[in-house]
Amino acid sequence: MPSISKKGNQMPESPIRKLVPFAEDAKKRGTKVYHLNIGQPDIKTPQIALDAVKNNDIQTLAYARSEGSEEYRIKLANYYKNHNINVSANNIVITTGGSEALLFTIGSITDPGDEIIIPEPFYANYNGFSTASGVTVVPVISKLEDNFSLPKIEDFEKLITKNTKAILICNPGNPTGYLYSEEEMKKLKQIVLKHDLFLIADEVYREFAYDGLKHTSVMALDGLEENSIIIDSVSKRYSMCGARIGCIVSKNKQFMNTAIKFAQARLSPPTYALIASEAALDTPQSYFDDVKTEYVERRNTLITELKKIEDVKVANPKGAFYCVAELPVEDSDHFAQWLLEKFNLNNETIMVAPASGFYSTPGEGKNQVRIAYVLNKKDLIKSVEILGEALKQYNS
Amino acid sequence: MPSISKKGNQMPESPIRKLVPFAEDAKKRGTKVYHLNIGQPDIKTPQIALDAVKNNDIQTLAYARSEGSEEYRIKLANYYKNHNINVSANNIVITTGGSEALLFTIGSITDPGDEIIIPEPFYANYNGFSTASGVTVVPVISKLEDNFSLPKIEDFEKLITKNTKAILICNPGNPTGYLYSEEEMKKLKQIVLKHDLFLIADEVYREFAYDGLKHTSVMALDGLEENSIIIDSVSKRYSMCGARIGCIVSKNKQFMNTAIKFAQARLSPPTYALIASEAALDTPQSYFDDVKTEYVERRNTLITELKKIEDVKVANPKGAFYCVAELPVEDSDHFAQWLLEKFNLNNETIMVAPASGFYSTPGEGKNQVRIAYVLNKKDLIKSVEILGEALKQYNS
Repeated sequence: MPSISKKGNQMPESPIRKLVPFAEDAKKRGTKVYHLNIGQPDIKTPQIALDAVKNNDIQTLAYARSEGSEEYRIKLANYYKNHNINVSANNIVITTGGSEALLFTIGSITDPGDEIIIPEPFYANYNGFSTASGVTVVPVISKLEDNFSLPKIEDFEKLITKNTKAILICNPGNPTGYLYSEEEMKKLKQIVLKHDLFLIADEVYREFAYDGLKHTSVMALDGLEENSIIIDSVSKRYSMCGARIGCIVSKNKQFMNTAIKFAQARLSPPTYALIASEAALDTPQSYFDDVKTEYVERRNTLITELKKIEDVKVANPKGAFYCVAELPVEDSDHFAQWLLEKFNLNNETIMVAPASGFYSTPGEGKNQVRIAYVLNKKDLIKSVEILGEALKQYNS
Repeated sequence: MPSISKKGNQMPESPIRKLVPFAEDAKKRGTKVYHLNIGQPDIKTPQIALDAVKNNDIQTLAYARSEGSEEYRIKLANYYKNHNINVSANNIVITTGGSEALLFTIGSITDPGDEIIIPEPFYANYNGFSTASGVTVVPVISKLEDNFSLPKIEDFEKLITKNTKAILICNPGNPTGYLYSEEEMKKLKQIVLKHDLFLIADEVYREFAYDGLKHTSVMALDGLEENSIIIDSVSKRYSMCGARIGCIVSKNKQFMNTAIKFAQARLSPPTYALIASEAALDTPQSYFDDVKTEYVERRNTLITELKKIEDVKVANPKGAFYCVAELPVEDSDHFAQWLLEKFNLNNETIMVAPASGFYSTPGEGKNQVRIAYVLNKKDLIKSVEILGEALKQYNS
């Protein structure tokens, strides 16, 4: 029997998706499952985007241009200009979700054995894309007690080797909810310029910055034109995760010409989703205002409720729609599976993402979970009640 | 300035897409361009698939399951059973086009430095996916004068090393149009069993087998259960290239469990396209009968017309919708660009795919082009007339 590759063996299971079969079993038993495990909001997609697809007049569902149509990229450049990111259509390559944007970026700037430094905990699939490209993730740890703020610059510098190609951040952060300040972004700028690295910023939660705080894009920093790369996606912005449209934005021409070759190899982003994404650019500001208000209330509800449970610690998220919580358990992987397999409170339970998958340092995050506040306030309150009861029962 | 990777530098430009800017310039000058360069049929997508998307009642465009919903995979397994491929839903992982199916497959079974043997000429993007995975394509040459039939088994055996992981075929073939016989498939079976290799069959043109010939799937061969992998796609079958839905089919459990991890890392195939693809499974047989009749007529028209031009040689395609033609030119890359940049016949010209990009042996295919017969007969006749006049002018 022919065998799979070392790389294949090393591919991590998704911490967000690996519990799905247990959740399906729970549902088959008639247990209601509150999904706090995945960044799949219940928020409605803008009607303008949905309508554009319903009203399409396609006869032959044809390939789109590999890098996305000029029209869409011109409109998208206008969107960026409105967000203090001064780019043109040529600085954009459309991808199949933020996932593909990451894959093309890592492929364009790294060879097997190269290293990317990432503040930890980080979006779990950074591990998957790095493994797929043979790249080593070098974690620099950020801490719950510091609210997951940017680690000290010295901590980064210690980790830089001749194989280091980039620093990758997620801002606002998944899973931490941390929003980097302009000052922190400037520190990162200094270090990447000093060491001639790329600074890759996953900004898919750009719109989700709370408490009056301003998002600082990596491409709003002067002097970083050749070093900065944005990973973006329509998934969270317009609550259209299933579209699978994202993009790479950069002014580094050599990098962009390379990314386009990756885009050509896979031919085309999905055409229906492009229609929805282009139309979504006309979403009125009121949509975002409403969504932001809703998420702030959800966050406040979730954090308030979590803090009521004994021995639960939680960081204060300032953006995105996640928080990392420390629980009084030794192994949150086991606990999360137990919640689905063995526990219910009046025939209801919750699904959370064990945090170990958001770390690459072995053993880190074992007592943490990521909770996505993508449900309405009533369901969040109920979910935390279930968590509290479950912890009591699990620990007795 | 930080630099891109060796891998990035090695990524090939798409021979199908690299001339697009020249075609766009020609169109801006008012020249009509007949597109023979890309497998984008003008055939209508089945109405049932188009309607399913228009009639969707999505409110929140959510992620799909990473490997595709069970419902869709069950229906798809039925489709395969009707094509003499006996599989169940668990043997299928849904991908974002055949492209992603190839990428996941190569990622699951190879490490950098491994080798895949591919009969040459082959689908150009096999080069791109191999480069992206650090894998070496080892070509085994098939010849126009043999109609691009399967090279001798000895030719394969000579090339097998300890790094060889798989043989990859495209059946029916892009760009050759060759359909492997059952006997040829059995020869391949013997060699992969003897050397413990995977046999990957790109069968996206399964339905496009002409002249009463029968397509033999790699998974219809007994005893090859652990070795065989199908790459598939809805793109050509239903003329919906822009959907970006495909799949991997295999009975090798270890391989499938690995492929699913790649699928989880990128979260989800595109949701709208899944709706279209699932609905497309109910396309009536009459659709395929009509399409096949149309393609056979187009092929006959194209080949007849091409053979009228002096010094043009062409293989006899038995499937898919491409042919490889040898032209009386030294450098078909130059000629193809010249057709767009410098030539027109009554303000019309043609776009063809230079064949060098379908070879990995340097220098091979320099006097060949791939022609896709994806246009109606009238346009094909006109296109070949333009080619004939262009060759006269180019060579004078």
